[in-house]
Amino acid sequence: METLHETCAWGTGKRWGEAHTETGMSRLTLSDADKEARDWFVETVEGLGCRVTVDAIGNVFAVRPGRSEGAATFAGSHLDTQPTGGRYDGILGIMAGVEMLRVLHENEIETEFPVGVVNWTNEEGARFPYSMMGSGVWAEALPLERAYSLRSVAGDNVTLKSELERIGYLGKVPASHRSVPMGAHFELHIEQGPILEAERRKIGVVQGVQAYKWFTIEVEGRDAHTGTTPLANRSDALLLASKLMVHGNRVATKHSALVSTGILTLSPGSTNTMPGSVRFSLDIRAPQNATVEEVEARLRQDFADLASGKDIGGLHEGGTLGKSEFSVSWRTDSETTATVFHEDCIRCVREAAADVLGAGSDGMVRDVVSGAGHDSVYASRVCPTTMIFVPCRDGVSHNPAEYTSPEDCAIGAEVLMHSVLKYDALRQS
Amino acid sequence: METLHETCAWGTGKRWGEAHTETGMSRLTLSDADKEARDWFVETVEGLGCRVTVDAIGNVFAVRPGRSEGAATFAGSHLDTQPTGGRYDGILGIMAGVEMLRVLHENEIETEFPVGVVNWTNEEGARFPYSMMGSGVWAEALPLERAYSLRSVAGDNVTLKSELERIGYLGKVPASHRSVPMGAHFELHIEQGPILEAERRKIGVVQGVQAYKWFTIEVEGRDAHTGTTPLANRSDALLLASKLMVHGNRVATKHSALVSTGILTLSPGSTNTMPGSVRFSLDIRAPQNATVEEVEARLRQDFADLASGKDIGGLHEGGTLGKSEFSVSWRTDSETTATVFHEDCIRCVREAAADVLGAGSDGMVRDVVSGAGHDSVYASRVCPTTMIFVPCRDGVSHNPAEYTSPEDCAIGAEVLMHSVLKYDALRQS
Repeated sequence: METLHETCAWGTGKRWGEAHTETGMSRLTLSDADKEARDWFVETVEGLGCRVTVDAIGNVFAVRPGRSEGAATFAGSHLDTQPTGGRYDGILGIMAGVEMLRVLHENEIETEFPVGVVNWTNEEGARFPYSMMGSGVWAEALPLERAYSLRSVAGDNVTLKSELERIGYLGKVPASHRSVPMGAHFELHIEQGPILEAERRKIGVVQGVQAYKWFTIEVEGRDAHTGTTPLANRSDALLLASKLMVHGNRVATKHSALVSTGILTLSPGSTNTMPGSVRFSLDIRAPQNATVEEVEARLRQDFADLASGKDIGGLHEGGTLGKSEFSVSWRTDSETTATVFHEDCIRCVREAAADVLGAGSDGMVRDVVSGAGHDSVYASRVCPTTMIFVPCRDGVSHNPAEYTSPEDCAIGAEVLMHSVLKYDALRQS
Repeated sequence: METLHETCAWGTGKRWGEAHTETGMSRLTLSDADKEARDWFVETVEGLGCRVTVDAIGNVFAVRPGRSEGAATFAGSHLDTQPTGGRYDGILGIMAGVEMLRVLHENEIETEFPVGVVNWTNEEGARFPYSMMGSGVWAEALPLERAYSLRSVAGDNVTLKSELERIGYLGKVPASHRSVPMGAHFELHIEQGPILEAERRKIGVVQGVQAYKWFTIEVEGRDAHTGTTPLANRSDALLLASKLMVHGNRVATKHSALVSTGILTLSPGSTNTMPGSVRFSLDIRAPQNATVEEVEARLRQDFADLASGKDIGGLHEGGTLGKSEFSVSWRTDSETTATVFHEDCIRCVREAAADVLGAGSDGMVRDVVSGAGHDSVYASRVCPTTMIFVPCRDGVSHNPAEYTSPEDCAIGAEVLMHSVLKYDALRQS
């Protein structure tokens, strides 16, 4: 916990409580703060007897040799955060990995195969809009050149590649699992949801991850003067976008899915000009691929209908539709099908949790499905993978007040190390 | 028309047609482009025998002496535009004023009292969010220090005062009608609405201006992860803001008023984080003050009710309300009561229009109420004032494709000059 809080000096965010450590984090990927955290990571793991490899997308792999040659069994997560994130999402997984290396090093424990810790680049997708990017490129799910060319959402004209160069993390090793193979990938993470806490569980054994798709929706209407344009003569792109977002929530409700918007920009942006152009992000998620597809198909049809003036759910009722000369276009930004984790890894986590929690562990452990995407989604495409969840207060995440107690962090870190050691033993056998 | 199009080289905006002149304008107040247009104005009117005064808010007054001392009869408007504005809003009024000075100068016409042209600072309120600012300070409706301290909406940390200094238009003369008095204020402007064109009229004699109020609405919910936060656990500020905007359009429809949003910003702004904070502009307008007050009171109550989970108009139906822990706050940014223009000025415009249009002018002239605010609103508080409207294509304004034919511009300019000369004669008598 000391290490976690000390390293949160790089990119400290909004304060939410009185104590020294009660602030959030704002450590956007490849920022100066991210560079400092990465430099600390490299220096620390080298001090623990690891060899460090940086690949062409900036993923940092620390490997501690075993008795035999071979791909390492990895613990992995990410050091970058949301712009208003907390101290645990991603960070906890890296800190627990470093703690594992410390325990192995200080106790001179030999493993059969190498053991490693990986810090993946740009998991959050907050600054460069593609989440789980580093693991995605490594798994060959995302072409390197496409990742390189992504521009910062801040509109400051920097690309992912130029920022990698600037902070000194544009590595020479090809960004691929073929160059840096893994024996397995275990990720400790906060749940970011309310279930474990509500049921007073300590460990979630993650079975897989729900499917999701990210889109950018662009609504084009017509700029017009707010004072002189009668309601009947308007094609107000923001009013239509508002109806689309309300409708998205209704369709999500009906399908037991999640539909959310986190980014909205408009043009031109003046109090007395109705925006002719609005762009917003649309994030559709559900445990089943088929549900995501159904929601997408429903919304594509309904958005077009609402734009053309057809009423759905009374959204146009009571208001003035105006000229309703709109176009609505969809761009797919990112897509992940539902993920099923590896049974061997899952078994190792279950056994490790039983060992760590001792008698009565049954009531403290449960299987869960992850609501969020994680680097383990891409890792699982090329090597045995699973995740370990620990509870977080009120299920709050992507928020400065994100919090997991030191006790729960410690349990998670112990389960992570024992899972890795069990898997190493399994490989040996 | 040559002068108009030549001076549109400073701040040329988006192209909408093939011809050289078929672009919009983007000449934000106190920008470099605005400075160049101002410099041209000063040089030109000095060449036409005028004395130029710049006041402390950057208003530029050009005065051509008459036979007698006294306050000048002014033509006035503004050279600044919206970020995606056109070539006529404001600009036409200044160009017609300069043309008037040219005609008087070249024909050596003497007036009884001085005649002037004024370029008001920051009519649009697009860059510094207070519209009709220069005339507002001059009329002592807005304190100079409040205007000075306004920050650019671009978030680049410049104030109105620092920009006035930077471009050399922070004048020494106090910004007040007491320092620079006016005998009257006439403003030629495009209608920015569809009525004159639809009825094939050439001149609108403006009786007054509708009332309006501008607000910033701030919605506070809670940032949360889009993938792990069940719909029932959300307090999604953007979803609530969407409902408020849809409801605003309904209340406007019911009261025959206008309710519009031109600016919306949110925080933190990441695809997989629901925004905990959304801010949007709200512009309420109606011909009667009482209607604006009614709409405001209705929306204050309804926004609070919707935020607390009470359903209005079925907006919450079919969706998931979530935890609905919100606060909604209102800030008043600007307020203008309905304006009634001066009967003497109105009579001069009516007579001038009859003279210019000749036989059959009755069918080509009508009384109108302005939907938009103009500098004439503030001018009318301290001197006799009215406005002259000319048609614009499709009623489109605050848009690059804003257009008034050269013939209609010429009719407007002639009516402006004859109105000023008739008023000068009226003052003499």
